[in-house]
Formats: sequence, C-alpha cells, structure tokens
Amino acid sequence: MEAKEISQAVIGRLPRYFRYLGMLKDEGTERVSSQELSDIMQVTASQIRQDLNHFGGFGQQGYGYNVEYLYGEIGKILGLDKEHKLIIIGAGHLGQALANYMNFERRGFIFRGIFDNNPNICGTKIRDIVVRPVEELEDFVKEENIDIAVLTVPKDSAAMIAEQLAACGIKAIWNFAHTDLKMPKEIQIENVHLLDSLMKLSYNLASHEGEDYAK
Amino acid sequence: MEAKEISQAVIGRLPRYFRYLGMLKDEGTERVSSQELSDIMQVTASQIRQDLNHFGGFGQQGYGYNVEYLYGEIGKILGLDKEHKLIIIGAGHLGQALANYMNFERRGFIFRGIFDNNPNICGTKIRDIVVRPVEELEDFVKEENIDIAVLTVPKDSAAMIAEQLAACGIKAIWNFAHTDLKMPKEIQIENVHLLDSLMKLSYNLASHEGEDYAK
Repeated sequence: MEAKEISQAVIGRLPRYFRYLGMLKDEGTERVSSQELSDIMQVTASQIRQDLNHFGGFGQQGYGYNVEYLYGEIGKILGLDKEHKLIIIGAGHLGQALANYMNFERRGFIFRGIFDNNPNICGTKIRDIVVRPVEELEDFVKEENIDIAVLTVPKDSAAMIAEQLAACGIKAIWNFAHTDLKMPKEIQIENVHLLDSLMKLSYNLASHEGEDYAK
Repeated sequence: MEAKEISQAVIGRLPRYFRYLGMLKDEGTERVSSQELSDIMQVTASQIRQDLNHFGGFGQQGYGYNVEYLYGEIGKILGLDKEHKLIIIGAGHLGQALANYMNFERRGFIFRGIFDNNPNICGTKIRDIVVRPVEELEDFVKEENIDIAVLTVPKDSAAMIAEQLAACGIKAIWNFAHTDLKMPKEIQIENVHLLDSLMKLSYNLASHEGEDYAK
C-alpha cells in the first residue's frame, strides 16, 4: 500500500473515520453508505469517497462499506494492529492525567514508564509504575525498546530532553510542551499545543461576538 | 477589521505567530523581517507575508515588522486583550491538570469554577476553587457570566452536559471529550481529540518504519 503519498490532511481525518466506524460497529451496524456516513459525520459524501479511495476504496456500488472490514483496515493503516510502548516525561498534572487515560491502552499504546526530575515525585507510583529520575531515561528507552515518548515538561527543558531521546533512538515524540521541537526527520513528531487551541477558540469567540444580535 | 473572512487555516496559524513574536519580544528584539521569521518558524517567508497581510500587513518594505506592535495586534485579533471566564466540567485527572495549568491565566483565561458528578470529589478544592456538583452548573454559568466551558467528561455524558451549557447561554466550548458535539452555530467549539492526535502519530510511525534502512 502506497501510504506514503497520502497527504497529512487525509491522515488527519482517518482517526475520525475510525471513531465513527467503531461506533457503528459497536451498535451492530454491518454496512454503511457514504451518504449515511456523511450525515452522521457532517462531511460531504464525496469527501468521504475521495478520502477512502486513497486506500483502495473499500466500498461497493449500491452496497456501501462493510463497517467491520473498513474499521479493521483503517485501524491497520493507523498502525493500531501493533502495540506501541510509550513513556511519559514529566510527571506533573498533565503527565499524570495522560498516564491515567485508559483509552490509550485499549488502542495498543502501552504505558511503560514515567520520568521526572523532581526527587519528591521520583519513587512514587502511578498505576503501579514507579516514577523514575530523568537520568535513567536513556538506558530505559534502549533496554525496553520504547517507541513513543510523551513530552509534558516545561518548554524550557523540552529541547534538551528531546535531544536525549533522539540520541537513544526514540521513534516518535508526542509533544505537549509549548514549543516546537527541531528533530532529525526520521523522528515523528505530533504536537498538542493546548494554548494554541484555546487561542483559536478565543479568536472565534471574539469574531462572532454580538453576531446573534446583528442578524 | 473584517476578521470574519479569514480562513480557519490562517486563524490556526496565528497562535504560533503570537508565540514566536512573544519569544522575540522577551529577548528584546525590536524588529524582524519575514525572512528572519521564516528561518525560525520553518515556514516560507511568502506564507508569512500572505498570512499577516490578512490583517492589513504590519510590515514595512526594508524595515520588517515591529515585533512589539505585531505581537500586540495579533493578541488583539486573538481576543487576548479581554479576559475570559472559564469553567471546567469533569474534575478527573485531565480536568485537574487543566485547572492547574497557569499559562492559561497569564493569557487572560481565568479559571472560575470546576464541576463534577462524583460526590467524593465535590467539596474538595483545586487551587482554592471548590469542586461543585453538576446540578449547580446552569445557575453558575448565568450568575457568573461564564464565557468558556472546558469539557473533560467521558464521551457518554458530553452531549447532555453540552446541551445544558447551551441552554444557559455558554458562548464557547473547549471539548476534550472523545466525541463531536452538535451545537447551535452561535456556540464556538474547539475540539482537542487526544486519541486522534496519538493515532496520527502512530500512522506516521508505521508509514516511516524501516525508512532509515531503505535509504
């Protein structure tokens, strides 16, 4: 499958397809047309057909999509048929929240370790996993063959930690630090900039202010 | 300013400009060219000029942009010149993490209340703010004139809470529940679907696997 040619915009929409197909599957729906998917997902049917055509097109004219099959195939495309070992760096409130978020485990993202540089936190446990000092990070990543590092450290220490992670062969960083990381391109990065998202909401709030009166 | 005509793609990039300009400002930089911004932000100079032109173009040929002025103007466009009152519904790990995230306050997003339906959590305090039962939500939003509700409840209760929020006149919802909300269009919604983001990372990980060997 020539997945590499698919644009990030399409990739960005796949988890949403996966979510809706999972819902339909859980409800016992066996097949769904692009029009029905369009109605529940609030995107056009033609967009749906185009997006899914990137993956060979699972639909059949007049039949629609087989929900369970399509769900499984998108899952594979998203790499969810494999387990990923994940560590968290930064055992503050956000790091702890992510460590406790069981939905990740259900999708094969297995929480294997958590690190912090605060000696008062090191040694405590989160879901039976002991918080380790950052000094042990590099050995741990190598020995445990960790795929994904979740970065929930303050922005000032993010670059240094990211460098350490690159040096010990991490494959992917899920970055919550409020800064952009400059990494070798073989390391995959996905940013969650919470403050950026809140500012976008604030913009939309400001630009729609008083609109209901104006109409 | 005809801000309404600006595409969400441009809006989505504004917080990042704001972040980099804030950094330059803190470093004491007075002016910056689109080329310099391009180098540090890793986007093309022409993209930067195009984006900033939506707002009247703050730059001057041969001079560049006045950092402090541009920072202030983008801040105003993002609605950061006003304070926003924010409540959190769901005092679990993620709700508590967001309540404790002081960066929001520094940008004018003032944490005013937190709600939960677990009687064991209600009555406890987070940053001196008592966790209230969800029954008090509607009166609180009206009396305190709350702008933004942050939703960190399980997806199954998200729709019901969102309806209550709409009924009492909330203006914006920052949604962390793993579901899409169907809301009247005068209510602004910004979704943070953490699992979707993690799946996108997983896709990129899967599709680049073994690439360093192939080259």
